[in-house]
Amino acid sequence: MSPDAGLRAWVDRSEHILSTLLPPALSEPCRLHEAMRYACLGGGKRLRPLLVYATGQALGAELEQLDHAAAAVELIHAYSLIHDDLPAMDDDALRRGRPTVHIAFDEATAILAGDALQAVAFEALASAPATAETRIQLVATLARASGPAGMAGGQALDLAATGSSQTLAALEHMHRMKTGALIAAAVRCGALCAGATPAQMQALARYSAALGLAFQIRDDLLDIEGSAAELGKTPGKDAAQGKPTYPVLLGIDGAQRALQTQVQAMHEALAGLHPPAPALAGLAKLAVERQR
Amino acid sequence: MSPDAGLRAWVDRSEHILSTLLPPALSEPCRLHEAMRYACLGGGKRLRPLLVYATGQALGAELEQLDHAAAAVELIHAYSLIHDDLPAMDDDALRRGRPTVHIAFDEATAILAGDALQAVAFEALASAPATAETRIQLVATLARASGPAGMAGGQALDLAATGSSQTLAALEHMHRMKTGALIAAAVRCGALCAGATPAQMQALARYSAALGLAFQIRDDLLDIEGSAAELGKTPGKDAAQGKPTYPVLLGIDGAQRALQTQVQAMHEALAGLHPPAPALAGLAKLAVERQR
Repeated sequence: MSPDAGLRAWVDRSEHILSTLLPPALSEPCRLHEAMRYACLGGGKRLRPLLVYATGQALGAELEQLDHAAAAVELIHAYSLIHDDLPAMDDDALRRGRPTVHIAFDEATAILAGDALQAVAFEALASAPATAETRIQLVATLARASGPAGMAGGQALDLAATGSSQTLAALEHMHRMKTGALIAAAVRCGALCAGATPAQMQALARYSAALGLAFQIRDDLLDIEGSAAELGKTPGKDAAQGKPTYPVLLGIDGAQRALQTQVQAMHEALAGLHPPAPALAGLAKLAVERQR
Repeated sequence: MSPDAGLRAWVDRSEHILSTLLPPALSEPCRLHEAMRYACLGGGKRLRPLLVYATGQALGAELEQLDHAAAAVELIHAYSLIHDDLPAMDDDALRRGRPTVHIAFDEATAILAGDALQAVAFEALASAPATAETRIQLVATLARASGPAGMAGGQALDLAATGSSQTLAALEHMHRMKTGALIAAAVRCGALCAGATPAQMQALARYSAALGLAFQIRDDLLDIEGSAAELGKTPGKDAAQGKPTYPVLLGIDGAQRALQTQVQAMHEALAGLHPPAPALAGLAKLAVERQR
């Protein structure tokens, strides 16, 4: 099986697990359930579940042990996209090439669907096939990564930064919280399910920190280069909203150099991981070279 | 110490625990942290933390064992109030006698503060001073009660019902999810922390199911009878929004009889609980006789 076919199988697997963890579209309240499924099952890169599977399997976990954690991080990611797209937030009408949830449904349903997805994420972790001790570590990891010290706090910093000038350090801090924390949590959850050693945890934390920044720098570059058809979302929005980005602060060449610095950091971190995790190297490459 | 003084001490205690679990107002992102604290520390009846303490202490738990669960249910409650008050939802400007979060801050901050509070609730449970097994049961209980099969699902049913005619059974089903599920979860979390027996769990589940409905019927009656000054929120909103209520479906006398039916059910449930829980009887009385 080629690396791509392996990743494809994990993507399909996470789609299936999400489908079974989400409430059925035909049961009441149907509109809420439909919106939750629309937001989670409409494609997407599935980077976070892939990180859970790639990390866990490299360290010897079975796929069955990783399913709930893989789904939980994606549920949190999906809820954050719904809420970020709301009119009061980034006000975006297009996501993954389809109308955003508040456009396809309505604003109240979008708010509630996001809220409910967060709860389903923690319910999924509570019912994971692992010891109670591991499940609690998963809950603690995901709660911290998505709360005020992580994703939600990062989004607040992002909103506050719009239209204002910002230093590179502040931009990096914001991204480490807004997108980096959940990416790091995905890797950590995979490692927790596999019973990783402290040395493995440390190498993986270095890898995921670099991956989070690389992912974001690539996002900023795509926002300048891409078309709506390629991106599946509205391009040039960051610049139009006056948001600080890596290309704005560093120029396009500087942003590409910053990206290479993170690529190097990922390679060094993975070189220190035993046993090796080739799938994590593959995901690093995908995150950096992706066209959407 | 009088029963009221006992409850007052628990209210103060939960306020203190919430204050320590919430991020400091002076650390970045300040605006998000301030909104989270504004929503959680501005008073309120604290019914849900009181239920955790009253249940747990009756069954022999120490207050220290109950603090995180008491705070977690209140954090979920507080987040739900922020989101329910949003313009796209119930569009309310007044809550607990003060401007709602999206008025006092802004809509984006209100959405994010609610999201972040939900994460903090699960983080609080993950760090509760209990066995990992108990903590996982707390997480599972709270996640289920606040997700699509509980509070968020009930709010979706409530939104769908606005302006339409509804049967009593449908109204009751909606309230059991929207407010009943979290009230039941508060009682169950207190019982879990105390290591309750299945027989105790059963009696408590009957008590909390009746309490949830009684609380809601009283709410509907207050919405007709009350003034904004007494209620701390806008009165008559349900009727103005065409929402079905107990008085609309049963008349005021009928609603009061339905309330008494639930009071009777609570007394019978508590009569079957050993050891007795006088504080739960006191909370039942407060919920039914309250003026706001």
